[in-house]
Amino acid sequence: MSNLHIQIIHGPNLNMLGTREPGHYGSQTLIDIDESIIQLGDELNVQITSFQSNHEGEIVDKIQHLDADALIINPAAYTHTSVAIRDALLAVKVPFVEVHLSNIHKREEFRHKSMMVDMAMGVIAGFGAQSYNLALRGLHHYLTQSKS
Amino acid sequence: MSNLHIQIIHGPNLNMLGTREPGHYGSQTLIDIDESIIQLGDELNVQITSFQSNHEGEIVDKIQHLDADALIINPAAYTHTSVAIRDALLAVKVPFVEVHLSNIHKREEFRHKSMMVDMAMGVIAGFGAQSYNLALRGLHHYLTQSKS
Amino acid sequence: MSNLHIQIIHGPNLNMLGTREPGHYGSQTLIDIDESIIQLGDELNVQITSFQSNHEGEIVDKIQHLDADALIINPAAYTHTSVAIRDALLAVKVPFVEVHLSNIHKREEFRHKSMMVDMAMGVIAGFGAQSYNLALRGLHHYLTQSKS
Amino acid sequence: MSNLHIQIIHGPNLNMLGTREPGHYGSQTLIDIDESIIQLGDELNVQITSFQSNHEGEIVDKIQHLDADALIINPAAYTHTSVAIRDALLAVKVPFVEVHLSNIHKREEFRHKSMMVDMAMGVIAGFGAQSYNLALRGLHHYLTQSKS
Amino acid sequence: MSNLHIQIIHGPNLNMLGTREPGHYGSQTLIDIDESIIQLGDELNVQITSFQSNHEGEIVDKIQHLDADALIINPAAYTHTSVAIRDALLAVKVPFVEVHLSNIHKREEFRHKSMMVDMAMGVIAGFGAQSYNLALRGLHHYLTQSKS
Amino acid sequence: MSNLHIQIIHGPNLNMLGTREPGHYGSQTLIDIDESIIQLGDELNVQITSFQSNHEGEIVDKIQHLDADALIINPAAYTHTSVAIRDALLAVKVPFVEVHLSNIHKREEFRHKSMMVDMAMGVIAGFGAQSYNLALRGLHHYLTQSKS
Amino acid sequence: MSNLHIQIIHGPNLNMLGTREPGHYGSQTLIDIDESIIQLGDELNVQITSFQSNHEGEIVDKIQHLDADALIINPAAYTHTSVAIRDALLAVKVPFVEVHLSNIHKREEFRHKSMMVDMAMGVIAGFGAQSYNLALRGLHHYLTQSKS
Amino acid sequence: MSNLHIQIIHGPNLNMLGTREPGHYGSQTLIDIDESIIQLGDELNVQITSFQSNHEGEIVDKIQHLDADALIINPAAYTHTSVAIRDALLAVKVPFVEVHLSNIHKREEFRHKSMMVDMAMGVIAGFGAQSYNLALRGLHHYLTQSKS
Amino acid sequence: MSNLHIQIIHGPNLNMLGTREPGHYGSQTLIDIDESIIQLGDELNVQITSFQSNHEGEIVDKIQHLDADALIINPAAYTHTSVAIRDALLAVKVPFVEVHLSNIHKREEFRHKSMMVDMAMGVIAGFGAQSYNLALRGLHHYLTQSKS
Amino acid sequence: MSNLHIQIIHGPNLNMLGTREPGHYGSQTLIDIDESIIQLGDELNVQITSFQSNHEGEIVDKIQHLDADALIINPAAYTHTSVAIRDALLAVKVPFVEVHLSNIHKREEFRHKSMMVDMAMGVIAGFGAQSYNLALRGLHHYLTQSKS
Amino acid sequence: MSNLHIQIIHGPNLNMLGTREPGHYGSQTLIDIDESIIQLGDELNVQITSFQSNHEGEIVDKIQHLDADALIINPAAYTHTSVAIRDALLAVKVPFVEVHLSNIHKREEFRHKSMMVDMAMGVIAGFGAQSYNLALRGLHHYLTQSKS
Amino acid sequence: MSNLHIQIIHGPNLNMLGTREPGHYGSQTLIDIDESIIQLGDELNVQITSFQSNHEGEIVDKIQHLDADALIINPAAYTHTSVAIRDALLAVKVPFVEVHLSNIHKREEFRHKSMMVDMAMGVIAGFGAQSYNLALRGLHHYLTQSKS
Repeated sequence: MSNLHIQIIHGPNLNMLGTREPGHYGSQTLIDIDESIIQLGDELNVQITSFQSNHEGEIVDKIQHLDADALIINPAAYTHTSVAIRDALLAVKVPFVEVHLSNIHKREEFRHKSMMVDMAMGVIAGFGAQSYNLALRGLHHYLTQSKS
Repeated sequence: MSNLHIQIIHGPNLNMLGTREPGHYGSQTLIDIDESIIQLGDELNVQITSFQSNHEGEIVDKIQHLDADALIINPAAYTHTSVAIRDALLAVKVPFVEVHLSNIHKREEFRHKSMMVDMAMGVIAGFGAQSYNLALRGLHHYLTQSKS
Repeated sequence: MSNLHIQIIHGPNLNMLGTREPGHYGSQTLIDIDESIIQLGDELNVQITSFQSNHEGEIVDKIQHLDADALIINPAAYTHTSVAIRDALLAVKVPFVEVHLSNIHKREEFRHKSMMVDMAMGVIAGFGAQSYNLALRGLHHYLTQSKS
Repeated sequence: MSNLHIQIIHGPNLNMLGTREPGHYGSQTLIDIDESIIQLGDELNVQITSFQSNHEGEIVDKIQHLDADALIINPAAYTHTSVAIRDALLAVKVPFVEVHLSNIHKREEFRHKSMMVDMAMGVIAGFGAQSYNLALRGLHHYLTQSKS
Repeated sequence: MSNLHIQIIHGPNLNMLGTREPGHYGSQTLIDIDESIIQLGDELNVQITSFQSNHEGEIVDKIQHLDADALIINPAAYTHTSVAIRDALLAVKVPFVEVHLSNIHKREEFRHKSMMVDMAMGVIAGFGAQSYNLALRGLHHYLTQSKS
Repeated sequence: MSNLHIQIIHGPNLNMLGTREPGHYGSQTLIDIDESIIQLGDELNVQITSFQSNHEGEIVDKIQHLDADALIINPAAYTHTSVAIRDALLAVKVPFVEVHLSNIHKREEFRHKSMMVDMAMGVIAGFGAQSYNLALRGLHHYLTQSKS
Repeated sequence: MSNLHIQIIHGPNLNMLGTREPGHYGSQTLIDIDESIIQLGDELNVQITSFQSNHEGEIVDKIQHLDADALIINPAAYTHTSVAIRDALLAVKVPFVEVHLSNIHKREEFRHKSMMVDMAMGVIAGFGAQSYNLALRGLHHYLTQSKS
Repeated sequence: MSNLHIQIIHGPNLNMLGTREPGHYGSQTLIDIDESIIQLGDELNVQITSFQSNHEGEIVDKIQHLDADALIINPAAYTHTSVAIRDALLAVKVPFVEVHLSNIHKREEFRHKSMMVDMAMGVIAGFGAQSYNLALRGLHHYLTQSKS
Repeated sequence: MSNLHIQIIHGPNLNMLGTREPGHYGSQTLIDIDESIIQLGDELNVQITSFQSNHEGEIVDKIQHLDADALIINPAAYTHTSVAIRDALLAVKVPFVEVHLSNIHKREEFRHKSMMVDMAMGVIAGFGAQSYNLALRGLHHYLTQSKS
Repeated sequence: MSNLHIQIIHGPNLNMLGTREPGHYGSQTLIDIDESIIQLGDELNVQITSFQSNHEGEIVDKIQHLDADALIINPAAYTHTSVAIRDALLAVKVPFVEVHLSNIHKREEFRHKSMMVDMAMGVIAGFGAQSYNLALRGLHHYLTQSKS
Repeated sequence: MSNLHIQIIHGPNLNMLGTREPGHYGSQTLIDIDESIIQLGDELNVQITSFQSNHEGEIVDKIQHLDADALIINPAAYTHTSVAIRDALLAVKVPFVEVHLSNIHKREEFRHKSMMVDMAMGVIAGFGAQSYNLALRGLHHYLTQSKS
Repeated sequence: MSNLHIQIIHGPNLNMLGTREPGHYGSQTLIDIDESIIQLGDELNVQITSFQSNHEGEIVDKIQHLDADALIINPAAYTHTSVAIRDALLAVKVPFVEVHLSNIHKREEFRHKSMMVDMAMGVIAGFGAQSYNLALRGLHHYLTQSKS
């Protein structure tokens, strides 16, 4: 039994998923995504908690008070601009995976740069809501391997 | 009768208007500006509501819950840095006009770039408080033309 | 009574308006635009004269011999390249508003830069033919305010 | 029988060809070049008319009043600077080929950029006066193919 | 039953895995990696074939003659330089995932740019040999979803 | 007797000091730092108040409502990105010193740029917690000199 | 009688022509293109031989052993990256024309740069398969002129 | 006796000298400047002719038909943008001196670059109307020295 | 008792202080500044020696023969250009503080870059002559702490 | 009688003039140049003193102790790199003209930038040794005009 | 006795040496160069083997299967583009010297950058065929010193 | 007998070799290096003289008065900044080799650029003190070959 706890953090505007622009982002809501990760967590014996905010400061607060073995973060718009989130990740030093719903390299130039990807354990992008599930599998494999 | 509703959003530090540096920004307060727009709204039969915040996350929240036909936004300092506000505007897809009190091309280099102007229906800058009123006229003309 | 006189200058290719590409630029001709401004001028008691040329040198000549209280100029293609028009505007020192039919920030990169906007009293873009009328209202407000 | 009409436009300083610097540009004059194109036009049953000017505005005027099926243009110095010619080409929407006597990629850095090449049907450079004839053949092939 | 066939392509120097520098790349050989993917393929009912080459031209040949539903490619050194592989991927238009053993954003500057990532369906990096397995799961989910 | 009042503002993640990464930032907590400044303030007869936040908007609010003769600010991560804090400092016009615990020029490239240093009365970096005390001495000297 | 011999070299992925993406590249195969050039060669009394490879090294080998009066080369993807092909061309010093099916200036930024165009006698792009035929005519004119 | 003939060309807006902004450009008109050069020409036995235009094309025409031993040109606004004037100067190959009334390096950034200075025999700036007279002395010395 | 010895190095043009431009740099001479540091040195029981030169090579010589526990250096103009002083500091490895009278970030762009600040123990700028005294206090604190 | 005194400063390597590379720099030595200026000084009643050094520090020393009404300086190699000479010129505030023997815009890219030209009263380049004489005439005109 | 074995690798187009362009590259063939190195190897008691290829992949293969104490490589055109050769050198970790016949810094800009020089033990360029012999001497000195 | 004379010039801070940082630069002093070169000079019948200075101006003086057949120069810190040394080398036109103890491409970015390498006969870096000896062999081979 692994006894692992993984925190999910969803950045700004992700609470809008499924309620607008279904043609672009699909009809899945953030609740649907969280339910799917929690279900996979049950299979892998990993406890999942999830958090969403549009506020950069609240995400910094959350990371500082992190009580988990690892982090899956989709920083959304803050991916490209936030030194504060980078510094918080630097301070807590928990392994994390950066995920994106879409392949950010297909979008505007300013979305190609990430302020935190060089500190990530890994990065997954372009699989829609599946990006989170793949990140969970990858982290689980990494953590149970290095623990045993 | 047009039955239109237009939301005004004022970005960070605009609540300081008229209380400091009258030599630079004039003696009009934000309340004076809002009164002037509301009065013009009455003439044009447009309902106006106004909102100000210094917090990037609160402006994102406001845009997400927008209940209006169009938006007039002066993003102030966040004009140049906020991908989060851009993404919120992208999600709600309401027509908007970007306004600035001063001609931003006369100011520092880092104020020449806007993160959202390419999505705007139009942009008006340099007319002081009149910038908002001209934006209202322009939007009204655009909306009533396309509605009729 | 204001007794104001405002000159309109239309830059290269604007004489083509309404005769080609109605899908893109609308079906209004330059004559329609001028009639609309003159009508608004009558309401505001402002005399309007209008001038169009495809030649950079002719526009410089016109500005040098300007006999008006203010100028509304749509420099079109010369917006982005003409130091000569900039210098002419610098020499005559009349207040002017730079107007554009479309939002130039939605177009190619090289159309984002203006050689003269930093000297303008204001700038209006993206309202189609209404851009001229809004500029006239803005200039009228500015001139009558500072005169009284 | 094709009944095609193609306009040639020669930009600034091309009227000097053959009269100065024969070592560099060859001894052919612009008249020689035109005669050669007209002769090829006769063979291909294409009517050719030719125009040269040192004035940016005159070239814009000419393009606006174009009465032809296609255009071969050597914008010479204006290749690198003229947004006005670009806009005129955009307005008339006739297929055109951009030609240069020399291979502009062998010359100064500032001659590598063209303001209009991205709208051209094709580009030919480096064959001296033959560049025009090759362009005529290419255009003729393109137009008769798409007409039949 | 899905009946899917997925091709794996390993780029230059990956045949060295596990035989040199075990401290850096781990002790797994390329054969170990392939066995692990084939085993996961059996579980998911997907046929896996694998190919490795140090030659850019051979990889181009392989992609051109692809006989599979999707592609998992680790272009290794050619990630950063090969326009030819990009063009081959563009021509065959099969969905593909780009994978990397390590997080390339933690390595030298010239490894941060990818010539093909903007055309990928998704990208996964940093999970060691697990990167391939996660890519297989993600592609399987994508293909069975869009087929049903 | 000087009767001076100086506000200290600590930016995001500084509340983590001394609780994590003692090897990098030392074992002093933010409370230790504040006690040391207050003690020096007592010696110099200067009243000190201190404030910390991870939220950009809260720091803007604090500066707007500043009730002090001068400001010592360590903007931390917001040093490099915040136009909003810059604008707030511009509005209140109180003299301020920018301080950093470490020499930011020894760290990553993106930490070398400051959005507000050009408006500061002075800057001190690299002396650890002593940076605040030196800033207090420097400001005290400056204010008592210019007051007398 | 001219007795000329011209070699054609087709770069990577051109063997795919006409078999995929007919909407983009037309339905002509590389065999069709070669037949068309050979037919024109017969008319002009020029012997044509043709060669295609996806391998950079094979193209270098071919150029080194060139047995022809001139070369027409479409380096395709290697246009933008190959110093080796450049050096081979430099060594054999035969006149050559660089051709492209499409106007490369209309495509991605990285396709605008050519590693060999500054050594070419001329360049032709944008006429589809006709680009080769125009190149053959241009070269034939150049060679027979300088031979006679 | 030298029998020299030197042409002066004054670029756009220079016809405004002395009639506006005497505080900035002095009260000398262009006629005053020409009279002063002609008087110095008489002393040095050099014939002077002078020409001014606001039109880029007219200046190109003038240079093409130049009938003089040397040229003194103040290209004013066209200094920074005109490839056409550069090409005309390149074609006629007469020695020329570029002059400016003010030190252009003290003005805006875009006035620091000259499109033609690298072809000039010399450059003189910052001496007001005296710049022309110094250029005449320098050219006279150069021409009489190399002629003898 | 600390028994410390600290060397002061003043770079080019600092010998001019107080003798010219009192409006800009104040009326204090370099002698006044040195006296003030020496007095503070007496209080802190630190021996101070001072050196000024306009010659880059002499400053390099001085650093090479340094006989002190630490260095306070105001490299003035050489701050921005001298690799030689950087290399000398690198060789002797004594802790040093870089000081500037004014806040260099308020001055010309080329004064924002320092060739040696990344090796400094700390940096202090903008406090006028007090910058040296604050540097002395900071160094004293650092040296006595690490010695004890 | 003017009673003026003008100092000439020649930068590094100018002492080599006329002794090497006569083909490039002419056969005049620095002594010849100085004699020519002194002779013109006699005519204009201006006292001339001259100084040459290869050492940046010595030129700074010379400018600091300047005892003259104006300066003619050819900074040679230091034109492009010396902030120290710039600062010395800034401190003494005497009017100066920057001269160059050759037109520096015809030479390597790194010679196009000058660290001090924006502070000069004027600049003259390309007239060989005559550049100094023209500078003397220009300065004399400027000083006697503003003195009278 | 040293018992050393050193592999020589010659990159693309070096097989052409001496057979073309003797004016530029001298009349020595690659065989002459190899004979000269082998002779020097005999003197120094070092076994030499040599390999040449125009194919990037073959050079990667060769490096992977290297059976020698050190490597002398002239990567020719691949110097500037090959990440694959870099990665192969990284994997095998044998000490190597990069050699070039000519001084690559005197040639085109794109030849100034080397993808592998930062990993080399040393680099020698500009001595023609002697570059190889000097590299052999340098490597021999290095290897026998560190072995003893 | 060759009768050659070669001058060695060592730039700033090289006099520190062996006395500080033996871990980095080895324990050899500059005297050891010179002795080794002189000994090799004896073998090759070449007279060696050596010179070191920390002063840019002194190195310029030395080059100007050079009395030798060739030069070996290690400009150290001045490699990257000195236009004056470049100009001196340009004036004397003696063949020279640029040497560096370390491979400068492995060091900081600003050390990758050399102001004089494009004029060098060759360049050698990365062999420690052996760099000088290899340079001597290379120069000797070059000079005796071209002399005989």
